[in-house]
Amino acid sequence: MPVVAAVGTTHPLAFAGVTFAMQVLAREGVRPVCVIAGVSAQDARSVLRRTPLDAATIAAQFDALREAGVGAFHVGALLSTDAVRAVAAGLAAFAGVPVVVDPVLAATGGDPLADDATVAALRDVLLPCATLLTPNLDEAGALLERSVRDLDAMRDAAPALRARGARAVLVKGGHLAGDAIDVVSDDAGVRTFRTPRIANVLRGTGDLLAATIAASLASGATLDDAIVHAHTRVADAIAHGVLFAGTRVAPETR
Amino acid sequence: MPVVAAVGTTHPLAFAGVTFAMQVLAREGVRPVCVIAGVSAQDARSVLRRTPLDAATIAAQFDALREAGVGAFHVGALLSTDAVRAVAAGLAAFAGVPVVVDPVLAATGGDPLADDATVAALRDVLLPCATLLTPNLDEAGALLERSVRDLDAMRDAAPALRARGARAVLVKGGHLAGDAIDVVSDDAGVRTFRTPRIANVLRGTGDLLAATIAASLASGATLDDAIVHAHTRVADAIAHGVLFAGTRVAPETR
Repeated sequence: MPVVAAVGTTHPLAFAGVTFAMQVLAREGVRPVCVIAGVSAQDARSVLRRTPLDAATIAAQFDALREAGVGAFHVGALLSTDAVRAVAAGLAAFAGVPVVVDPVLAATGGDPLADDATVAALRDVLLPCATLLTPNLDEAGALLERSVRDLDAMRDAAPALRARGARAVLVKGGHLAGDAIDVVSDDAGVRTFRTPRIANVLRGTGDLLAATIAASLASGATLDDAIVHAHTRVADAIAHGVLFAGTRVAPETR
Repeated sequence: MPVVAAVGTTHPLAFAGVTFAMQVLAREGVRPVCVIAGVSAQDARSVLRRTPLDAATIAAQFDALREAGVGAFHVGALLSTDAVRAVAAGLAAFAGVPVVVDPVLAATGGDPLADDATVAALRDVLLPCATLLTPNLDEAGALLERSVRDLDAMRDAAPALRARGARAVLVKGGHLAGDAIDVVSDDAGVRTFRTPRIANVLRGTGDLLAATIAASLASGATLDDAIVHAHTRVADAIAHGVLFAGTRVAPETR
């Protein structure tokens, strides 16, 4: 059974964050392991507290995974420059293992998770570790320090982020009007993935998409096949979302 | 769907600890949420690092669960007296919700997770919060500061731990020879649960047992029914364990 490591920050309600990513990975048929890089306290409305873990604790968790046969990494929200640097250093010991980086900068409710220095560290230190980077429009804009608000801007942003060091980039256009359009850039060029928009909001879709892609890559799928499969999982979760703790979340996956 | 909060310490390999407990809870058909009270770095042989979270971060995570409808708590390994006190304080806001406390003092490999002061805090501060306490022989002995090595000693230890404040106590005799015998003490008296021994070792059985019981209690089961069901889950996991990272662990549960 392939093994995928979820790296990131925990969320008490577990409809997003590293423990949610682990549930997604298990559902995809891979064994989840983890590196906890931060702990958040947040409910559906606001972030109550952000506590990054220290660099030595992050490094020791990567060391503990040396014999786990990790086949891919999913990297989610990171809360400090030290955490970003420690994660990048930890990944360096796993040469050749795919790394999906979801550069989460804010909770869906709008509260920030990363300050300006952390955004800079993500761009300068972590982005070059990414086999695939999966920013939404706001994140692509913050990483490039420009506005990314339409399809043309997405088609420019994806290769621009590749030029910063990510081997492939998936810019998520979910917040645009019309069909949901994602733009992918890799060695083979720039292309779009279009899925019918479902008129529902759902928390945790970023983690769901990135973790599902990581699971597929660990299982040997091509990038395009991994993206298409992840899109079906996201569409299914949005269509079958459930109310929990005052918001709409993915259904529980046994 | 019932909601159960897993409280404790993460394990990178996730075959034990709070993220494993969350996988168990999901498999039992309840929604897992969490309070991360500590982060460990350990592999199958040894504990590389123990990092307790600060009291304010633990408290804020409990606050974030106020509207989650938590139906039971599973409390696993805690790494400091401050963490123990913060967990006890957090539980106080959830009056009437069942709390299963697994007083983990060491990793299965033998490395300690709790020092003497933490053991004292578990006994004096957390034990009175427990609807059910689930010590093994070593843990019962450490909490009572005496040797608990045979069935007679277990039958004495269970009510002695109740006298310290736990409403019910399940002393696990797994390390004795012969059939696996657990001793339960509650308002209804002292009784034994006997299950056929399966000649295999498995990591994570303590978390599996306690989390499964917590899931059943959240679903309205009686204590005895919850224990019987959890015993079948543990026996099944031991019978179908898989090799991972150099040790034998529960099979992945999708």
